[in-house]
Amino acid sequence: MSQIDLNCDLGESFGVYKIGMDDEILSFVTSANIACGFHAGDPSVMRKTVRLALTKGVKIGAHPGLPDLMGFGRRNISISPQEAYDIVVYQIGALSGFMKAEGERMQHVKPHGALYNMAAKNRELSVAIAEAVYKVDPQLILFGLAGSELIRAGEKIGLQTAHEVFADRTYQQDGSLTPRNQADALIYNNDQAVSQVVRMVKEGKVLTQQGVDVSVKAHTVCIHGDGPEALTFARQIRETLEASKINVKAISE
Amino acid sequence: MSQIDLNCDLGESFGVYKIGMDDEILSFVTSANIACGFHAGDPSVMRKTVRLALTKGVKIGAHPGLPDLMGFGRRNISISPQEAYDIVVYQIGALSGFMKAEGERMQHVKPHGALYNMAAKNRELSVAIAEAVYKVDPQLILFGLAGSELIRAGEKIGLQTAHEVFADRTYQQDGSLTPRNQADALIYNNDQAVSQVVRMVKEGKVLTQQGVDVSVKAHTVCIHGDGPEALTFARQIRETLEASKINVKAISE
Amino acid sequence: MSQIDLNCDLGESFGVYKIGMDDEILSFVTSANIACGFHAGDPSVMRKTVRLALTKGVKIGAHPGLPDLMGFGRRNISISPQEAYDIVVYQIGALSGFMKAEGERMQHVKPHGALYNMAAKNRELSVAIAEAVYKVDPQLILFGLAGSELIRAGEKIGLQTAHEVFADRTYQQDGSLTPRNQADALIYNNDQAVSQVVRMVKEGKVLTQQGVDVSVKAHTVCIHGDGPEALTFARQIRETLEASKINVKAISE
Amino acid sequence: MSQIDLNCDLGESFGVYKIGMDDEILSFVTSANIACGFHAGDPSVMRKTVRLALTKGVKIGAHPGLPDLMGFGRRNISISPQEAYDIVVYQIGALSGFMKAEGERMQHVKPHGALYNMAAKNRELSVAIAEAVYKVDPQLILFGLAGSELIRAGEKIGLQTAHEVFADRTYQQDGSLTPRNQADALIYNNDQAVSQVVRMVKEGKVLTQQGVDVSVKAHTVCIHGDGPEALTFARQIRETLEASKINVKAISE
Repeated sequence: MSQIDLNCDLGESFGVYKIGMDDEILSFVTSANIACGFHAGDPSVMRKTVRLALTKGVKIGAHPGLPDLMGFGRRNISISPQEAYDIVVYQIGALSGFMKAEGERMQHVKPHGALYNMAAKNRELSVAIAEAVYKVDPQLILFGLAGSELIRAGEKIGLQTAHEVFADRTYQQDGSLTPRNQADALIYNNDQAVSQVVRMVKEGKVLTQQGVDVSVKAHTVCIHGDGPEALTFARQIRETLEASKINVKAISE
Repeated sequence: MSQIDLNCDLGESFGVYKIGMDDEILSFVTSANIACGFHAGDPSVMRKTVRLALTKGVKIGAHPGLPDLMGFGRRNISISPQEAYDIVVYQIGALSGFMKAEGERMQHVKPHGALYNMAAKNRELSVAIAEAVYKVDPQLILFGLAGSELIRAGEKIGLQTAHEVFADRTYQQDGSLTPRNQADALIYNNDQAVSQVVRMVKEGKVLTQQGVDVSVKAHTVCIHGDGPEALTFARQIRETLEASKINVKAISE
Repeated sequence: MSQIDLNCDLGESFGVYKIGMDDEILSFVTSANIACGFHAGDPSVMRKTVRLALTKGVKIGAHPGLPDLMGFGRRNISISPQEAYDIVVYQIGALSGFMKAEGERMQHVKPHGALYNMAAKNRELSVAIAEAVYKVDPQLILFGLAGSELIRAGEKIGLQTAHEVFADRTYQQDGSLTPRNQADALIYNNDQAVSQVVRMVKEGKVLTQQGVDVSVKAHTVCIHGDGPEALTFARQIRETLEASKINVKAISE
Repeated sequence: MSQIDLNCDLGESFGVYKIGMDDEILSFVTSANIACGFHAGDPSVMRKTVRLALTKGVKIGAHPGLPDLMGFGRRNISISPQEAYDIVVYQIGALSGFMKAEGERMQHVKPHGALYNMAAKNRELSVAIAEAVYKVDPQLILFGLAGSELIRAGEKIGLQTAHEVFADRTYQQDGSLTPRNQADALIYNNDQAVSQVVRMVKEGKVLTQQGVDVSVKAHTVCIHGDGPEALTFARQIRETLEASKINVKAISE
């Protein structure tokens, strides 16, 4: 029977600033990527989010980002591979403090935003990130864009990896996501988005914008946790996956 | 035979900003308190400092501070005990990332600056800090001002503690340090400073500004790592302690 | 005819984080205190908020805070008077950049949160803040707690000042606000809150928790811009003041 | 008689961190670019540096940078033109607070590091920066790489501009600087560096790495203020320029 993990970015509030519906979305996902204070999150938010996810039985991962709270980690910063290594070690460590305080272990690491996107294409950066994860804890699972440099770097160093796919993004013939600045980058129809995921999981294929199928590995699906439609979609994708006889469970289970 | 630990704050550089003579001072001390990015230090500085201390065989501890880079963690901030818990867990965790990446374990935790001073007197704050340390790792040794609330909180929760004394500070009849804003707070004569430490270690006593002896526990001495005289004094105190048949070694050894 | 200014803290969003109902609240207030990036706000938020307030014809003031985004400027930090001077000059200057870019002048300065509260009681701090305001622009009006040290410091240096009162806070016999940690600090009944303001404006008196009246100057009233009840209350107080023949207009008009 | 301005980045210390020999270098330069708190500098450093430059009779400019203290503003960040506008308005404003507090006017604006380099080549970014400067104060002089997009954008909007040249960098046939990652990017011989500047000022030409001369406008020369050789070189270039009958004075004089 096929299986899939559903992951969501959580713990992105900061100080008095609240963002996301962490409590509700945790009922639908199986892996939580928790912000570590660089692009979002603060120590108090991290503690609360770790405890909340544990209560809900959701597996926890670190979600390290670029040091850019003002830009929410979405702006590229020309960091060196060494700097990437350092900020990833730091942020995994920081979250691990809260995990140890609760007597639990972290499941995975998924870079955030611009760091994720840069690592998908930049070999040196992805090697540095994979090394950071591996050296802190070789049992951690590295989440990256399906088929990306980050996944390759993780596999090469000996990490278990999770190929991540997106429900609401269209794909190109070379297996890459259609860039966001193109008109047809996003799938607005929820049924179509869910169907795309079901097919990726069951058949390992996705229909590209060029009209041909390409192969894609799908270990985990990224679910959004913010915005009015997020919960509706999360519920729909979870129910449809289960109705399609796909086992929805955390990547490590 | 008596023994004593010599500790120093290290890894306080930030980005292009260099501070301290970390490399040289590591030849004289036995425990290094490494800044964790809140009051000083950054991920790259932390990696370098951890590796440097390991190379020199010096034990490593986390040096968590208040979130105040501009004030170097020396300005009191009215944080709640819960916030103290959170920022200490976070910072210990962050440094532990670099320790794990090097395959080593952390020895101790010593709060920095205003956090150290507030914790010395504030019971609720010290309890929160001790709990943070204990929950992350009950094997960690908590450094605090000799006889302070922080030491009491550490002992109460079950942590090994290290009473810290100062070579260049004078003491009051109640065992407290003479406040820095008083004229006679500092000892400028190196011989006198070293003699005070030797006596604290060997006899467990210190002559106060009131002219009477009080008892003091001395497990570790704080050595400064910056300024022109720092290295000279570090060498002198180390040599004098050893010449006085006091075993200078890390608190955990 | 009596007159009163209604002021509100605005521009407190940061990056992707949204807070406050700036657009709506601007229909009811006459002076906007705009955050300057230390406790809240960022350059983009400042530009948008300045333009929005100008469109609505609301007078603009700088709302400098302590450098503590994580704590929203609500935590006391033991800054020196010199540091207070420096951060206030910096933040007024920063907002003035956006004012000049729009070809407009700033009306006032109101310190935020912990800086406001510390300045109300601490003479040295309030003198430093008043000097900062005066030296940047002696035409600026300094907002401070009615009868506070900050008001005195402003008057002494030669600034026009605005005594600020609170609708939803109770008063003590010495004219001070009942501390927030006391049970009867807040007024939850909107009618009572509005009546208190009307009387402060028309009679210059407020009934204290001790059951006796004390004199109070009321030049401006602080209105909250966040939370579900904020708009309802803003509308009610504005309408009631106007119905009471009190002229609601900006302090400088 | 030819004339030239000598400018230097100053006020780059932060908190306890000291960098640069501001006091000494001010004896040789005619324009000071003062950091504004984003890539370096803090409010206290800004106040001190403004006062120091005024004492020495050196003209003052804002030196706005990317929000990246950890990277000293040297790492590219993919900000939008709107964000560039906003952070430049903010930082010019912040420094103008200290100028107004001293009763003086700012002379110029020179973007720092990565912002300077990105603006040299990116038209949209340079237009946004030029607009920010112009809207805050159309009397400000915009410093940019000689012949760059930033200079063009400044001229187009109506600002006075200053073409900046570098003493210690080699040039390419298209008038651009040899990229730093190339072996022959830097000129290590002081005599050669000074001669290059003298020729740029007197003849408006520079010998490129391709062995041919290209035209270059030279209104101001960037002098470094940090490192052991900085003062020696500053003195040498100033003396040689004056000995060459070149009038060394601020761009606005």
